Amino acid sequence: MSRFDVPFSDRLFARVQSLDTRLVVGIDPFIERFPAAIDCSDVERALVAYAIGIFEAAGEFAAAVKPQVAFFEQHGWRGWRALEQVCLAAAERGIPVILDAKRGDIGSTAAAYARALLGDEPGSLGASVDALTINPYLGSDSLAPFLARVVEGGRGLFVLARTSNPGGGEFQGHGPAGSPLYLEVARASEKWQGEQIGECGYGSVGLVAGATFPAELGEIRAAAPHAPLLVPGIGAQGGDPRDVASAFDERGLGAVVNSSRGIILAHESRPGVDWQEAVRDAARQTRDQIATAHTP
Amino acid sequence: MSRFDVPFSDRLFARVQSLDTRLVVGIDPFIERFPAAIDCSDVERALVAYAIGIFEAAGEFAAAVKPQVAFFEQHGWRGWRALEQVCLAAAERGIPVILDAKRGDIGSTAAAYARALLGDEPGSLGASVDALTINPYLGSDSLAPFLARVVEGGRGLFVLARTSNPGGGEFQGHGPAGSPLYLEVARASEKWQGEQIGECGYGSVGLVAGATFPAELGEIRAAAPHAPLLVPGIGAQGGDPRDVASAFDERGLGAVVNSSRGIILAHESRPGVDWQEAVRDAARQTRDQIATAHTP
Repeated sequence: MSRFDVPFSDRLFARVQSLDTRLVVGIDPFIERFPAAIDCSDVERALVAYAIGIFEAAGEFAAAVKPQVAFFEQHGWRGWRALEQVCLAAAERGIPVILDAKRGDIGSTAAAYARALLGDEPGSLGASVDALTINPYLGSDSLAPFLARVVEGGRGLFVLARTSNPGGGEFQGHGPAGSPLYLEVARASEKWQGEQIGECGYGSVGLVAGATFPAELGEIRAAAPHAPLLVPGIGAQGGDPRDVASAFDERGLGAVVNSSRGIILAHESRPGVDWQEAVRDAARQTRDQIATAHTP
Repeated sequence: MSRFDVPFSDRLFARVQSLDTRLVVGIDPFIERFPAAIDCSDVERALVAYAIGIFEAAGEFAAAVKPQVAFFEQHGWRGWRALEQVCLAAAERGIPVILDAKRGDIGSTAAAYARALLGDEPGSLGASVDALTINPYLGSDSLAPFLARVVEGGRGLFVLARTSNPGGGEFQGHGPAGSPLYLEVARASEKWQGEQIGECGYGSVGLVAGATFPAELGEIRAAAPHAPLLVPGIGAQGGDPRDVASAFDERGLGAVVNSSRGIILAHESRPGVDWQEAVRDAARQTRDQIATAHTP
């Protein structure tokens, strides 16, 4: 019995209900801002120690963790090896891993990314990853190898619909009035789900929809009733937790909300406090703020 | 004096003119299809040996080489370390490297990707990379850290406009009649160039426009007169070299044309022939086919 025998959406929302948290903790390691307690003489070891410290401090408040690949890639192959260890460490602790890679390519290249990031090979990065963020710009056919990993591999996807940055609407909002591209993507996700709707009522092909544009978040929710939503943009990016209310259903399911810097850099605003305690407090508070956005 | 003191577009088109080739050799290593002469007992060494073998065989027919990151990522951190060595080996041979990563993200994450893949740190991957493919879905603000590497770092970009896959038009062609998204991206590229037009008449912010849709390629050329075009899709993907005629200006500049499998797997259709000779012949023939598409 592997955890991947259960659909991703059911795994995610079972944890949401049992821990009563909709918070995703984004792991964007800014190594120059690590707490003094982390020995940074070896980058690889520092990245792993920091992430594990966050898992231990905030894991019980995290529906999932979301390592951001770019922050590991910037350290070359040692950063990549650290990423593999970080994802394995989360998986070993039973914390779902949403790998934030935003990949998108075609044909055999898309297949190679799916193998790299959602593959089953023991000891590989993919074997520790529960879900992956992907970019839809190249069209439905480009997503096929990733969708196959949903059906055959028990993994989840979060396809970019409306990102949380100020300029996200430039191309995502492109289109005739009433049919912006982000809604085309949202509607297409209902096809991508196929028959794969879990017991929770959601499929495992999710969407990214930013908290910074609450009206558009609501439109996306309505256009894609079976898509789990990954909602970035609260905290450092300016979105208010209450703005995400429309992402949730009447059971308080259907969405998870990411916060990165607000949690993993919490030590910076609390000098003299143990860094893990600062992270833990910030995670608890953010979880509680998100809880004000949904019922029950 | 670093090669990055000369704008990317001028470096690229100077090589196009001096070697009289518009061919980009795509490095998509399918390890299960490597020639028998490559010892595959160690994946990392095999990837590097294969790529260097291709550079030696086909380098003089290549305006650039385009390593596809996914094919390295799928081998984990050892694959990433191989990618670093492959890009360095091309740079040491004076062959421009277009890293095909199709990255796209926002804010501090986009900055981390720019540092990872176009950075200057000695010994890092970025120090060997001349240009990078990126995905525009997240909007102009998401491109800022990459555009900064054009201005400050002498690098080039190829932004996805119209990809070569059959479904590429699904979202890229989205929009009111006469203004599909790929043309919005093409027009935006003229802004992204800023004042950075090289002596060759082109900027260093290029576009990806597939050979498989010749009419749209022509539209993109017209909408973005200063963008170098990277044209994939000939060979295995079905595009005809003659279909790329509209990408070139009257001097035969303004575009380079990628072929991957048609060259790097040439040994498969010539059993008994030395694999590098097969690769060399395929590269020469493809260069000559592309030459029929432009004058002079």
